[in-house]
Formats: sequence, structure tokens, C-alpha cells
Amino acid sequence: MSELVGPVEVVGTGLLGTSVALACRRAGLEVLLTDVSAEHVRTAAAVGAGRPRDPDDRPELVVVAVPPAHLGAAIADALRASDAVVTDVGSVKAGLHAQVLRAVGPALATRYVGSHPMAGSERSGPLAASYALFDGRPWAITPHEGNSAETVALVEELVDLCGAVAVRFTPEEHDRAVARTSHVPHLLASLVAARLAEAPAQHLALSGQGVRDVTRVAAGDPALYGQIVTANAEAVLGLLHEVRGQLDSLISAISEEDGDALAGVLLQGVAGTRAIPGKHGGPVRPTASVFVSVPDEPGVLARLFAAAGEADVNVEDVRIDHDLGRAVGLVELVVDDARGDHLQESLESQGWVTHR
Amino acid sequence: MSELVGPVEVVGTGLLGTSVALACRRAGLEVLLTDVSAEHVRTAAAVGAGRPRDPDDRPELVVVAVPPAHLGAAIADALRASDAVVTDVGSVKAGLHAQVLRAVGPALATRYVGSHPMAGSERSGPLAASYALFDGRPWAITPHEGNSAETVALVEELVDLCGAVAVRFTPEEHDRAVARTSHVPHLLASLVAARLAEAPAQHLALSGQGVRDVTRVAAGDPALYGQIVTANAEAVLGLLHEVRGQLDSLISAISEEDGDALAGVLLQGVAGTRAIPGKHGGPVRPTASVFVSVPDEPGVLARLFAAAGEADVNVEDVRIDHDLGRAVGLVELVVDDARGDHLQESLESQGWVTHR
Repeated sequence: MSELVGPVEVVGTGLLGTSVALACRRAGLEVLLTDVSAEHVRTAAAVGAGRPRDPDDRPELVVVAVPPAHLGAAIADALRASDAVVTDVGSVKAGLHAQVLRAVGPALATRYVGSHPMAGSERSGPLAASYALFDGRPWAITPHEGNSAETVALVEELVDLCGAVAVRFTPEEHDRAVARTSHVPHLLASLVAARLAEAPAQHLALSGQGVRDVTRVAAGDPALYGQIVTANAEAVLGLLHEVRGQLDSLISAISEEDGDALAGVLLQGVAGTRAIPGKHGGPVRPTASVFVSVPDEPGVLARLFAAAGEADVNVEDVRIDHDLGRAVGLVELVVDDARGDHLQESLESQGWVTHR
Repeated sequence: MSELVGPVEVVGTGLLGTSVALACRRAGLEVLLTDVSAEHVRTAAAVGAGRPRDPDDRPELVVVAVPPAHLGAAIADALRASDAVVTDVGSVKAGLHAQVLRAVGPALATRYVGSHPMAGSERSGPLAASYALFDGRPWAITPHEGNSAETVALVEELVDLCGAVAVRFTPEEHDRAVARTSHVPHLLASLVAARLAEAPAQHLALSGQGVRDVTRVAAGDPALYGQIVTANAEAVLGLLHEVRGQLDSLISAISEEDGDALAGVLLQGVAGTRAIPGKHGGPVRPTASVFVSVPDEPGVLARLFAAAGEADVNVEDVRIDHDLGRAVGLVELVVDDARGDHLQESLESQGWVTHR
């Protein structure tokens, strides 16, 4: 059985690489840092992420965390430079696997296992890094048939050490999965948001929480998302063609006042929202929402959550509804369905204004 | 100058009607209740929403809050039955205005002003009602050229009394606005969610907060949304054709690896997210997110918000990231951009595990 004892080399000391390095350091492993920018390496070392790699160092595991365009070459270099297991943190896998195989051949590629942590930040660079970045996040691992069980297990140990949850996929499956759960939702959110960019300002005064939720991801970095979508073009296009087919059906259903066809699309949407796994990966539990009107001032949320705590109710989710033109906010507390009535009664008895 | 002194008649004592009634009662107005269901009237009266209407009562204002299919007839009946100002709370306005005009003629229609509160609940019926339902919500008012200033002012007083914020539109403008900010976002969320309904379960393990946000509204009642979309078919279809055109461009851009065209769609999406008005209707202020890893147990959010309060930072928004397979949650605190560093340092100094 392999065991992750280090040293771990991190190639690319940006946000993701330095965060992996910090998690490894926290676990007591020796970490070697490499980056085309000597200043990034100095910064990462200064925040406790490890030390610059020496030519004589023999890493056990190399984590390649360079920008998408440079991943293939950097992985190939790492495989040639040592006999370490090599992984990466890129967000699209099948094309990259093929590129690595072409570059180094099947023998060296046995030591390469792709992976993809579902984590990020709106900030970048080593100063934004944190050992907690991966806490509780899914982290896809994409072994190929050339990998030994020990090689894959070593990467899974890294995932575990970072506090993330390993989920295994083939590279192709991974790419189809993220096209569905991430890339296509992002693109359609962009199409909805694009309609708002064209709208008269007064129309947007009617924006509620719904449209804010639908469009939020569309605020992400267009350059980065453009690269990711391009790298995953095949899986993304397959789903976009499905969307176009169903959009045509929807347009026909509304034009022809075919209520059954319209209901069919809406019902399939309801089924989709229920298919997303619940908290802790388990089935979705039915929840209840209790809405509370609160003054928009510091400390009010602390008092509200203290009140919910006194009622002994675990809050599963929270939304703060941005209001229009007045200094009162609306807080939605999402709790277990069986606890909704109790929470509402308890908050009302403590003087909070609630509704459901 | 007109003044809302009552009595106010509420026709239809479901969630919205009874909530309006409760808000009027709170303001000290006499409220008269009417519903085809005598039991609903008794229930609404029992929760303090008013008293059953007598034939001799002379309402000053009638609020019609019956299901969409019955709105036109109920508004016409109310206009014929008294000389009160009449409004309604339906979610689509232009067709309804035309229907009322056809039914009663231009003279009686001068006393009708449509309106639409942007509020609701996943529950229905008089027992789910609350005087706080409209707190801080936008409430569209759709006067027509036949209305006097006094007539419109009376409905605006009702909106004010309910704690909502009145926004004026023509009926046609209103329908285009809600097509853009509500109906089309809902339909596209359904198309994204429909792709999840077809997905292998393992793929959905990679679902993050993004896809949950994009699809959340698609969980709404298909029968109700089907009626709303059908009633607003013209405005919805116009936008859906725009979406289809841009979807075709997107598919071409990805197929042909045209990075500039892809970036153009994504950039327009970013612009759209920035066009949504910020808290209190003002411009969007730049925000910072601080992520905190917390154990999933009662009381932890109260402690976290108390800690944020001690740091004297106002939390603008909160998201709880549902994790996968472990009992640690990730809470995203959204605060003013200038306060992010301070909040993070303060939380870290109090022992919380954070990152940005």
C-alpha cells in the first residue's frame, strides 16, 4: 500500500497550488515549490507553504497547478523529471489526458492521474491561498487504465489530507459531468443576464431573488470561463444542442397554447432540482422556509440566529433578500420541514416579525 | 387629495388577499372579506383579517385577489357593484386591462388600476397569510390613461401601508419587465434543471452552489407558472426568440473556436449581472466574500454572526454551501469590499477557519 509521506512538489504557486501546499504543510509533509515566477515562490514560501525546490529533491508526488494553457507541457515535464506520481488541478480532463499521453507515451503516463477540486475563489495568487479552501468540497479524480491502484490511492490521500471528498470518474465522464453541472448552467445564466444588460433600468426594479440567483454565476471571469468552455467544447455542445431542441419545443408550446407541452418542460425542471444531492450527499430532505423581516443594521443577524438557536432549530440555509428603497431586509431561514412551525412560533414569541 | 380611510374590501381570501387584509387591519382600517368559499372567509376573519362583507357595505377600495383565470370577471363585478376604486394583485397585466375594458366599458374602467406585488410564498391559503408578506418588496402599479391622479394615489397608499415600494408601469411595460426579470429566467432555469433530471446520479455529485442557484426557481409550482407564462405569451416569446438567436451564436462560437464571439456573450452576461439594482435600489456596491468552515451543528451560525458583529461588520448576504459526505459546512459571508480583510482577520483572531 502506498502512503503519502512526501515530499510533495507543487508546480505553480497561485491560489490552488499554494492552498494545496498549505494543506500539506499543515499535515506535516515537506513541500517543494516551483513556479516560473520566482517572486510567487518567495511569497508562497513566506506564507508557510514550503521551500523552493532544489535540483536534487526527489518528490513523492507532484501537483501541477499552472494555468490551463500550460498544463499539458508542465505535466509532461514533471513526469520526465522524476519518478514521482503526478496529478493536476485543471477543470477539463479528457483532452489533457490525451495530450499528456501523446507527449510522454504510455509508460511514463502510468504515473499521471488527473484530478479536479471543485473549489476556487474570486481572488487569485498565493496571498489568497488557504489550507481550508477545499474543506468539504467534492474533488474529482480521473484515473485511466494505465494507472496502478497505488498511484490512484496516493492522489486520494492528497484529496483526503486537503479535507475534500474524492469522487472517481473517467476523464470523459468527468467532462460530461462538469458540462452539465457547471459549464452549461453558466452559459445559460449568461444568456439570461444578457437580457438584463439590454433592459430599461426601470424594468430591473422588479428584480427579485429569483433572477439574482439564476444570473449570479454569470458574473464570473469571462476570460477564464471562455478557456474552460473551449477546452470542454464537445460535452458542452452536446448539451447546448439538447437545450436548443427543448427551447424550440417550449417556444412552440407557448405559441400554440399547448398547456400540456409547457407543463412537461416545467415538470422536468422540477424533477431536475430534486435530483441535485442534498446536504452531505444524501437525499434531499423536505425543507420549510420561515421569512423574517429585520432592520438592516449590524448585529441583527447574530440576534436572529441566537433566537433560532434558542428554539433548538438547525438552520440549513439562509437567504437575505435585498429590498428596494427601504432599510428593512427580509431573511429566509430554511430548516427541516418538521421544524418550520416550531421555529416560526418561537421567533414570533420572541418578538420577531415572520411569515411563511 | 384622496386618502385611504376604508373600508377596504378584499375579494379572494387566499394568501395574498388575506395578507393585504391583515396589513390594512394593522393600519386600523375596516376590512370587508369576500370569497366564493365561506370557509375561507371564516378562517380569514378568525385570524383577524376583517369581517364578512354585508350587502349594504360601501367599500372605498376593492382589492381583487382571486386566481388568474377568474380575475377579469371578478374585477368587472366589483366595478359594477359599487363606486369604489378597484385594484388586483395578478402577475400579468396587459391582457387583463383589455379584458376589463371590454367587459365594463371605458367609463367604469376609470376606477380600475391594476397592480402586482412581487411577493409570494411556497404556501397558500389564509392561514399562510402575514401582514409582513410585502415588507420591502417592489409592488408594480399599472395605471392607464383613463385613471385620475386620485385613483392611482389611493392604490399607492395601499402599497405604502403594506410596507411595499410602489413602482409605476404601463400594463405593457410591466409585462415586458416581468417577462425579463421573472418568467424567462424561470423558463431557462427549467431548461438547465431538465438536463439534471436526465443525468447519471454520480455526475450530480459535482454539483456546486452555482448550479443550485441557477436552478432553484425551477422548483416552483408548474401549474401556476404555466398559467402565468401563457398569460404573458407575447412578451415571453419575444425574449425567448432573442435567447434562441444568442444560443445559436454561442453554439457557432464554440464549434468554430471563435474566442472573441464567446467572450462577447460572456461579457454581456457580466454586464447584465451588474445592471441588477443593489440593496435598497441603489447602485451595486463592490462586495467581498469571506468563507468560513463551520461544524454543522445548532448554534454555530449564531456564534459566527456574533463574531461578525463584534468585528462591527454588516453582513450583506450569506450562503451556506452544502457539502458532500462530511459534517462540515462552508458559510460565505458577503460584506462591503472595504471590510473583507478586517472581517477575515477578526474571525481568524477569534479562532474561526476562514479563506477568501
